[in-house]
This record gives sequence, C-alpha cells and structure tokens, in this order.
Amino acid sequence: MSERKRVEAMAWVCPVPLRQYDRVLLGHGGGGKLSAELVEHLFVPAFGSAPEHGLHDSAVLEPGEGRLAFSTDSYVVRPLFFAGGSIGEIAVNGTVNDIAMSGGQPIALSCGFIIEEGLAMDTLGRVVELMAGAARTAGVSIATGDTKVVNRGAADQLFINTAGVGRIPDGVDIRPDRASPGDVVIVSGEIGVHGVAVMSEREGIEFGTRVRSDSAALNGLVGAMLDAYLDIHVLRDPTRGGVAASLCEIAAAAGVGIKFEESLLPVPAEVAAACSFLGLDPMNIANEGKLIAIVPPEGVDDVLNAMLSHEHGAGAMVIGTVNDEHPGVVTAVTRLGATRVVDLPLGEVLPRIC
Amino acid sequence: MSERKRVEAMAWVCPVPLRQYDRVLLGHGGGGKLSAELVEHLFVPAFGSAPEHGLHDSAVLEPGEGRLAFSTDSYVVRPLFFAGGSIGEIAVNGTVNDIAMSGGQPIALSCGFIIEEGLAMDTLGRVVELMAGAARTAGVSIATGDTKVVNRGAADQLFINTAGVGRIPDGVDIRPDRASPGDVVIVSGEIGVHGVAVMSEREGIEFGTRVRSDSAALNGLVGAMLDAYLDIHVLRDPTRGGVAASLCEIAAAAGVGIKFEESLLPVPAEVAAACSFLGLDPMNIANEGKLIAIVPPEGVDDVLNAMLSHEHGAGAMVIGTVNDEHPGVVTAVTRLGATRVVDLPLGEVLPRIC
Repeated sequence: MSERKRVEAMAWVCPVPLRQYDRVLLGHGGGGKLSAELVEHLFVPAFGSAPEHGLHDSAVLEPGEGRLAFSTDSYVVRPLFFAGGSIGEIAVNGTVNDIAMSGGQPIALSCGFIIEEGLAMDTLGRVVELMAGAARTAGVSIATGDTKVVNRGAADQLFINTAGVGRIPDGVDIRPDRASPGDVVIVSGEIGVHGVAVMSEREGIEFGTRVRSDSAALNGLVGAMLDAYLDIHVLRDPTRGGVAASLCEIAAAAGVGIKFEESLLPVPAEVAAACSFLGLDPMNIANEGKLIAIVPPEGVDDVLNAMLSHEHGAGAMVIGTVNDEHPGVVTAVTRLGATRVVDLPLGEVLPRIC
Repeated sequence: MSERKRVEAMAWVCPVPLRQYDRVLLGHGGGGKLSAELVEHLFVPAFGSAPEHGLHDSAVLEPGEGRLAFSTDSYVVRPLFFAGGSIGEIAVNGTVNDIAMSGGQPIALSCGFIIEEGLAMDTLGRVVELMAGAARTAGVSIATGDTKVVNRGAADQLFINTAGVGRIPDGVDIRPDRASPGDVVIVSGEIGVHGVAVMSEREGIEFGTRVRSDSAALNGLVGAMLDAYLDIHVLRDPTRGGVAASLCEIAAAAGVGIKFEESLLPVPAEVAAACSFLGLDPMNIANEGKLIAIVPPEGVDDVLNAMLSHEHGAGAMVIGTVNDEHPGVVTAVTRLGATRVVDLPLGEVLPRIC
C-alpha cells in the first residue's frame, strides 16, 4: 500500500454511531446490538464485504474447479504500528503469502479479532483500514470474520487471526520436498528488515538510517514467476526463524543438502549493524515481504528475470544450490572461504515480531 | 464425543520429546526447533494431518466443483474445561456449525493457537486431544495450523481460532433473508444449556442438577434435514446472544416478522432456575449444539421427522411462524397470552462463554 494511503488510514475518523464508545467494551464482542454496530459501521464499510444476501455465519465462495490452498496465521506483533507496516497489514500479507508459497492466488480471507476490553476504538479503526487497504492491494476479499472481546488484562490490546483460501493454477506443484540436487536457490531481496524494524520501534533503538518493514503481499510476484516458468520446485517466505529456518526445513523435508555463499546474502548495512550490536544472525531474523525460490537450473534465467522486473523481486539474488552431499544439512560458505553448518535456531530470537 | 473418550483425552500423557518442557515457552512459537518439536510430537500425531509431501505453509484441498462455505471463529471461553465440553471441542464444533448453517459439509479446518507463556504442556495436550476427537466425530480434518506464544500476562492461558471450508450441496440455498411469511420456526432442542454450564463451572454455582454443555457438531443433523427436504430457507445456530439474537437478525435480514409461543420454547428446569436466579432471559443465553430452522409449511413434517430421528434433534419443537405484520420485529406470546417484543440484547449477558 502506498505511503499516502497508509497516512490516510492512520487518520481514521470514528463513524458517528460508534463515536459514543471511544473504547471497545466487552459487549462489542457479545453478539448483541453493540456487536452488530461494530460490524455495520466498521467492518462492512472497510472490508466492503456485505454480501448481496445479508451477513451470514459463513461466506459462500464459488472458486470453480481445481485445487485450493488453505492456510492460517495468528498475528501478535507488538507494537501494533511500526515503520513500514502494522499488525493489520501483516495479518493480510502474511496469510496471502502462505497461500502464494503453494503457488496459489488468494480468493478470500477470514479475519478473527481478539480484542482487550478498553482498546481505543480509533486504534481498532486504523488497524481495520490498514487491513482493508492491504487486502485491496493484494486483490483479495475479506469475506468472513469474528470478533471476541476479553476482559482487561486477559489479552494485550489486539490479536488477529486470518485464514485464507486460494486457487492453485493447474500444472503448479510447489512443495518443500521437491528441492532436488542441482536446483538453484534464489532470495527475492534484502533480508532481516522486518524483524529489525519492529525491534527498533519496540525498543526505541535506531541503527543508523531508520529501517522500515518490508511487509508486502507476494502473490503478484509469484504469479509473474510462474508465468515465466511453471515448474518452480519450492517457494518459502522466511518469516519466523528467518532464512536459516526456511532453508533447514526445506533440506529436511526433501532430504537434500543446501549450500550457499554468505557473501551473496543481501543484508542491508542497518540490519547488519543491528544484528552485530545484538549478537544476532541476520539469517535468523524474520522477513514479511521476501521469498526463497528453489528452481531447476533450466528455469533460473526465466524466474530471475521475472523477479527482477517486479517491484517485490527487484533485489533478487542467486545465493546457492541444492546438493546430495549432506542430506538434511544446510551449509554456508563464509566470507573467509570456510564452510559452516547452519542450524535451526532453538526458539525465538525476537519474540512477537509477527 | 463419548464420555469415555473425553476422559481418555483428559488423561493425556506428554510425549517423551516434549517432556523436558512441562510448560510452554516463548520459543515454542518462535519458528525454530522448539516449534518444530511441538508440531512433530503434539499436533501431527493428534490431528493426523501430516500430508504426504511434508508440512508446508498451506494445505492443499481438492474440493471438486461447486460452492464452498468459508467461516471463522475465535474461542476465548473460560474455564478451558467445563461440564460437557472444552475450548477444544467448541473450537471445532463452532466452526463446523457455522459452515453447516449454510447447508455445508465441512472439508477442512485451520487452527491457530495463541498461547500464554507458561501454560502447562499437559493442558495444551489435553485441549489438542479433545479437538482431534471432536474433528473425528464431525468427520473433518484439521489441515493446517499456526502457534504463537505471547509473554506471560499478555494473554489468558489459551485462545484458539478455527476457520473452515465446507462444500455446499447443489440446490441448497440457505440464508437469513429467505425467511418468508408463512414459514415455520423450529428449534432443535433444549436451549440455554451451554451458557449456564460454563457459568456454573466458572462461578462455582450449581442450580439443582448439574447442567452439561450441549456442544456438538450439527453437520450430520443438517445433512439429514436436507436429505429429507432440500428447500430449507434459513438455518442458524444460536450461540452468543442466544435464540433472541438469532431470531432478531433473521427478522431484520429478511424484513419479516417472527412470532413464537414462549410456552413452546424448550427450556430445561435447571436453566430456568439459573436464569431466574440471575435475572437473565434463557433466550439470550448461548447454545453450542442447537439450531433454529425456518422451513416452508410444505417441508415442516419432513424436516421435523428427520430431526426427531437424529440424536442432535431429538428434542426438536415447532415454536412459531414467520409473518408479514411487523417487518423486522420478533414477538413472543407469553404464557399469560400477552404479546411482547423480543429485542437484541445490548451487549454480553455472559462474557467469554465461547
């Protein structure tokens, strides 16, 4: 979503019928009049999803024939708004991206809010506007939803769950265990940006230039890549656990080795600075608008060119290859020419970044 | 699910690789090794959903041609376990029922856990077992999921979101605005039971005999009703807001009046006692295993017989009719023969019952 639109959404004005409640009450989740007002005056205008035949317990989709991707994620990021994004935007983009990582184009999202009693109505309104904008940008409808309000202290402001359904084009077969020896590993751009942006906002630390989250919907990029070359083997968006966790999971699922050059990893200077300051590895930091593609050698040129021509793949780089030497093991060639094993991190290097 | 199976699930034993952590840590939601262990040793064995090709960001469904119902709900009920049910069972049954209220048969559920750091691993394990049992009973797979762990104090133990996709049979057209003057209103059994069961568990109050939640998946009942008569106009499960809210929403959506006899409402004595003690109306209390059906007069006998032959419809009753006298208004004929207007409750009569 453009910066101008984000700023407009941040200046959200509470619609009149809700204005008498400047904070969310328990009753706004109770299934009565207050709930109905929230749906009528906030969700329906923003999401534009009032179906022709009135609101119902479920949305009716007509996806046509073929395979569907189905995915869910909950979003608990703190703070709710940060440089380059918000919980609302990553709640849309994250689930759109999970679907895109199967090669799917999203059809519809569901949206479940868990709200702490007392949340400012303005805060909820801004989050909803930013979600709606992100959904428009990704070309997906928010088709069904639910709101629960819990007592003050029983949640931290606002959690959002989204689930999504997407259509997988015929002939597409993208899954982690298709990584094969000889395949080439591509990343779509600079890594570690989202995690560092959230952390610097949260902790009030700035590392040189301000880092902005890369949160973006990648279904357009994936569509362009598949148009260029249909037989992409694996796609993965390296969110929690970062690039390291994604590569380790792929290596384990396919029973192959993955080897890459550390010097080829696109790590921006501010991310490198923040990570060295905090003793973190940029490979473990979450991204929200990047993907890893594993492609057979004959498709690399087509896929890479398609990526470089797309706004979300303009920084794409080949970083390594798949091998059969060390099944299940990811190795990095360091800047000094040594080889090290890259392992799955144990737990959370930065909690609550998505 | 049978009582024996519920008891077995409650005696859940932590699998060995998880046993060194008797509480959930932040790292169990971090996308690293701890997350992977939770998926491998808890979710996959319980949900039996490890796909043929390894775990991926999204599940791949092959629903065939036709319309799909898509719905979501978050579950924040306290306590997590109560007489006749648990958060896990209503998280499955609630979303299955939302799909069933479009006439849909569920194909797949997603499941998002938001867990407070420090939750006993045993508690999570029991919830997951009960969800798995409920999904088996409803005949639906839990196909994809997500786990987030938030800091101690940032959530209240455990919240669950489920979303679901279901197939709507050809020829079925069930929606609130199809209620038409002359149609007959049926409830599937005793009302108010779930809300009173949760409340009495929470507050430690007993009202005569112990009330047990009616939590149940209604897709089987709905299937039997549609087999008997395809042109059912409206289905609704009266959860939050109770029977009153459901009838008011239908009347508003269809622009019709609904009139029913209070004396025909099946309210069990314990629910009536609890409500009179607390100054509540049983019509506002949530149900988790009941439905309201609105059926044209020519279909009533077939639908009612199908309901009475089904375990979840054995207490079905005709309670009223749809009229064109007072569009948008629900009226009740009291036991004394007077007529009163039934209104949507303002907010929450019993918070956190689902």
